Amino acid sequence: MERNQECKLVKEWIVEVGNYIRTHIHESFEVAEKENRQDIVTEMDKKVQNLLLEKIRTTFPEDKVLAEENGLSEIEEMSGRLWIIDPIDGTLNFYFQRENFAIMVALFEDGIGQLGFIYDVMNEQIYWGGKNIGVYRNDERLMSPKNTALSNGLLGINAFMYAENIEHTRDIADKSMGVRVYGSAAIEFIHLLHGRIIAYLSNLAPWDWAAGSVLAEELGLEFSALNGGELSFDTRSYYIVGTKELMKEVRETYMKC
Amino acid sequence: MERNQECKLVKEWIVEVGNYIRTHIHESFEVAEKENRQDIVTEMDKKVQNLLLEKIRTTFPEDKVLAEENGLSEIEEMSGRLWIIDPIDGTLNFYFQRENFAIMVALFEDGIGQLGFIYDVMNEQIYWGGKNIGVYRNDERLMSPKNTALSNGLLGINAFMYAENIEHTRDIADKSMGVRVYGSAAIEFIHLLHGRIIAYLSNLAPWDWAAGSVLAEELGLEFSALNGGELSFDTRSYYIVGTKELMKEVRETYMKC
Repeated sequence: MERNQECKLVKEWIVEVGNYIRTHIHESFEVAEKENRQDIVTEMDKKVQNLLLEKIRTTFPEDKVLAEENGLSEIEEMSGRLWIIDPIDGTLNFYFQRENFAIMVALFEDGIGQLGFIYDVMNEQIYWGGKNIGVYRNDERLMSPKNTALSNGLLGINAFMYAENIEHTRDIADKSMGVRVYGSAAIEFIHLLHGRIIAYLSNLAPWDWAAGSVLAEELGLEFSALNGGELSFDTRSYYIVGTKELMKEVRETYMKC
Repeated sequence: MERNQECKLVKEWIVEVGNYIRTHIHESFEVAEKENRQDIVTEMDKKVQNLLLEKIRTTFPEDKVLAEENGLSEIEEMSGRLWIIDPIDGTLNFYFQRENFAIMVALFEDGIGQLGFIYDVMNEQIYWGGKNIGVYRNDERLMSPKNTALSNGLLGINAFMYAENIEHTRDIADKSMGVRVYGSAAIEFIHLLHGRIIAYLSNLAPWDWAAGSVLAEELGLEFSALNGGELSFDTRSYYIVGTKELMKEVRETYMKC
């Protein structure tokens, strides 16, 4: 299947599943706690993941899948084609706000990000694109955000990392114009693609950063582990994505300490 | 003038001024720093305040005004009718995001909040109402949010207060389901009125909390200084607003320490 056909198909799947969520958003959901009280999973997370999985497995039976729920959260090696799925990113927002959450899907090939999709379900906006094909919001092509310096923009941030100054998060934030906490990596990535924040620092699993990183990179932003090292597909990582100018300052000033 | 006429008039003024902002939002603005690097004022803040001031002074020449910009930020005493104006709440969002800011206006009489108006300019939604008249989003009456306990909801919070645990802010947040930082008191109040967050804790000037507090109180929420004391109209205060259940727990557990 050609890349643009593949892209079109996956967008259709995601929007279809998003429509399903919107139709059922005002029902009550069973909730289970995962690792801690604030880490919850709803029936809807599992339902959405299964809907997407079924479509991928039917159309691309050879491909591997890494996904947040139902025991698909580990991958042995990165060779070949790998789909990475976050069925509902921002589950607490989904549950308590009924907005500010998104579906995220990425395609990696031999460990290299190729396609990314973020669907802001309640606003019916799909951000999509990837390596050498640009980034779009629905049908509109996005321009690269300005290459803003750390001292002249707002940062998206994980509140706990900020408070504890994990990997210099607080030091970095204090040089910026201020921090925002939206409660969903997907929503932070959307703000980043528009230049409303110029970096995002958090503690993320691969399905949290995969799609957004592909899109951010295509718009000229850079990402890495917050200590400068490689990101892991096996576990959570302290993660940063931001403008080139900001990443240069962070690398030079904070990643060496 | 009758209360409902007064309400209608002020809404018209605010929406008219909001339309002016939207028309000029993509121009570049001169920016001046106030008390610190992150405390900025744009030409637009001053322009909006002057437009509202002119209307108030023409129609209600006897009334007093307390407002953020242009030397109107102090008031000698609270007797009589007092308009409290925040021309653009969330100035950093206005400047860097071109969204997530609002116009806020309140009317107090003898120190008691009577009317509140919050205009989410980019989404063209005006939240308005007051004592004994209910709270509305445009023409739709809002129901009171659920009386949710601290442990079962999200909090809006000032990131610095959270990190420094000022007046137990961090202790309180750690008992909740998580924190959000939207960068504008007005936007936090809007989320609060809808029940998307169940409390908001920040360091606020009177024009930051006046309108939102009137609306929150009318929907059954409670507010006070974070140490349990009186709020000041002369200076910034550590401020909390939240559900009755949450405020009860905060009063019993944290305000006595």
